[in-house]
Amino acid sequence: MQTQILTTGTGESYPITVRHDLLNSIGETLTERIAPCRVMLVSDENVAPLYADRTAKSLEAAGFFVSRFVTPAGEESKSVRVFGKLLEAMCEAHLTRSDLAVALGGGVIGDLTGFAAGCYLRGIRFVQLPTTLLAAVDASVGGKTAVNLEHGKNLAGLFHQPIGVYCDIDTMRTLGDMQLRNGAAEAIKTGILGDPGLFDIFENGNYEANLEAVITRSIAYKAKIVAEDPTEKSVRKLLNFGHTPAHAIELLSDFAIPHGYAVAIGMSMMTRAAKSRQIVDSETCSRIIRTIARSGLDTKCPYSAKEMAKIALLDKKASGRDITVILPEAIGRCRMEKIPLSELETLLAEGLEEQA
Amino acid sequence: MQTQILTTGTGESYPITVRHDLLNSIGETLTERIAPCRVMLVSDENVAPLYADRTAKSLEAAGFFVSRFVTPAGEESKSVRVFGKLLEAMCEAHLTRSDLAVALGGGVIGDLTGFAAGCYLRGIRFVQLPTTLLAAVDASVGGKTAVNLEHGKNLAGLFHQPIGVYCDIDTMRTLGDMQLRNGAAEAIKTGILGDPGLFDIFENGNYEANLEAVITRSIAYKAKIVAEDPTEKSVRKLLNFGHTPAHAIELLSDFAIPHGYAVAIGMSMMTRAAKSRQIVDSETCSRIIRTIARSGLDTKCPYSAKEMAKIALLDKKASGRDITVILPEAIGRCRMEKIPLSELETLLAEGLEEQA
Repeated sequence: MQTQILTTGTGESYPITVRHDLLNSIGETLTERIAPCRVMLVSDENVAPLYADRTAKSLEAAGFFVSRFVTPAGEESKSVRVFGKLLEAMCEAHLTRSDLAVALGGGVIGDLTGFAAGCYLRGIRFVQLPTTLLAAVDASVGGKTAVNLEHGKNLAGLFHQPIGVYCDIDTMRTLGDMQLRNGAAEAIKTGILGDPGLFDIFENGNYEANLEAVITRSIAYKAKIVAEDPTEKSVRKLLNFGHTPAHAIELLSDFAIPHGYAVAIGMSMMTRAAKSRQIVDSETCSRIIRTIARSGLDTKCPYSAKEMAKIALLDKKASGRDITVILPEAIGRCRMEKIPLSELETLLAEGLEEQA
Repeated sequence: MQTQILTTGTGESYPITVRHDLLNSIGETLTERIAPCRVMLVSDENVAPLYADRTAKSLEAAGFFVSRFVTPAGEESKSVRVFGKLLEAMCEAHLTRSDLAVALGGGVIGDLTGFAAGCYLRGIRFVQLPTTLLAAVDASVGGKTAVNLEHGKNLAGLFHQPIGVYCDIDTMRTLGDMQLRNGAAEAIKTGILGDPGLFDIFENGNYEANLEAVITRSIAYKAKIVAEDPTEKSVRKLLNFGHTPAHAIELLSDFAIPHGYAVAIGMSMMTRAAKSRQIVDSETCSRIIRTIARSGLDTKCPYSAKEMAKIALLDKKASGRDITVILPEAIGRCRMEKIPLSELETLLAEGLEEQA
């Protein structure tokens, strides 16, 4: 059981709570901070049958008036079309500027709900209740919200901070291997970026027995970075380690390769490229690749540097003629490098060397 | 010819320029402030044939790389669907975070473009080139962006400030009476709120000969208010004078009654209600109603207080159990009053008295 307060650089702050048996008392927990109001409870067809009733029951017992929006599970729901449907549902439920949206689910639900909350009546409050490891360690913290466009992931969205993130560890028990690994990739990323102890948990091969520590440490690091740079002008770009190739891989696979798996491949590529540029030593490179593989994730990319570079050039991180890439220097330390767009394909190609 | 700098409370500032023959040199004007980049030029099927070519030509001559998005004219284009189409068009044009959207048109184009610019890649820059009096005096300044939902106008959007507003007075020459009156209503509003001299122009019945003064004075007042309160937490609410009934009137008429005409009726209602509550004297009330009518606008509402109140309760300005209404005290001075939602219908009914 653990509670943390995140203060962002914008002066906003919100609590992040990670504990067991949280959803059954979420209503009471929320009333410690806000007065009962109307709530739009958003979840997907996988999560709703498992957790929506207990969440709604607890909210109603605490005096909230709950409406529900349930969308099909999967990336397809993170679209402008479903965004529009959710906004209309908020109207139908008569939500006003002082009401609340609650995201109960994984990253798709969190991103979609946060974006709609940020736009509805030009912005209402929202709360994250992450039910996947990936959402818990990454998506739920930091206020990045988005939907996908036909041309790529997360191409439309906002920075809109939640008023709280409440993670019920018990929901992780119902996750399959794939979903656990999906989250593991982002936690490994955090270890490489700034928490060698967190990396150790994965290197030792027993992260599944240490989920509370994995979630808490991941959030603590991300909260620190986001507080320093809420809108990704500087140091927050570090969190994109592995993500430039990852977004391309997801798109090229038509989302058959899940986000975390793609990030794992992306981190492996950037680590190999860093080694080829003598930014990281050979031993550290091997430790990173081995730890990613040991966590059940892939380290080899099925696509060419050329096709990935083409897609990456539309990525949000491409700004004008340069792109910022993140390269590891050691376990717990990475650097940001601005490279010309024209050099990206070469860098990706370096990341594909020695991967066999 | 006149240039003003608006500084908002958020520390942002941008120039507002009102002059003749502006579009033919807009490219050059922009390069005084920003480096040439990719531009998505957004306009509608009425405006594009008149002004898109000269705007694009000037931008291209200055080194900008211009793509175009043209949508049907009218409120129907201010939808989540067209918002999605515009976002996809921005992808197709390979706009990056350092590129620019340009809104060439009336309020619909400005609101739509600003909203898309605020969400594309979590926010790119945009410029307003208002071509209607309504957009020039009101919509283009202040950073409010939005689309309509099925349940009402402007229910989804953002605060996203443009990096500049450039108004070519010559575009006003091609406006019909209806469009001029539409803008006149918002300028009269500004006069009643805080600029008795601006009100005089309309009371004297010769605003069409004084468009430059009308636009400049309207913008000056709005810029001042927006700078004090960019996100409408306090004094900016004054700008909603007449707008609570107006939004209901627009919706009830299925948008057959244009925005400015609806605002004129809404202001007339709030003025009568203020008189009935002895907030404004009978003489001032008559001057306001007479001036609105003299400008070719309506002062009588075709709908009942009951049906308007029902719709207004979904309005953004309804926050929880209260709604803020604006009531005139004198020419150049209005007050904000928070009333219980349950009292709104009574207030609207007072606004319908003596209107025959």
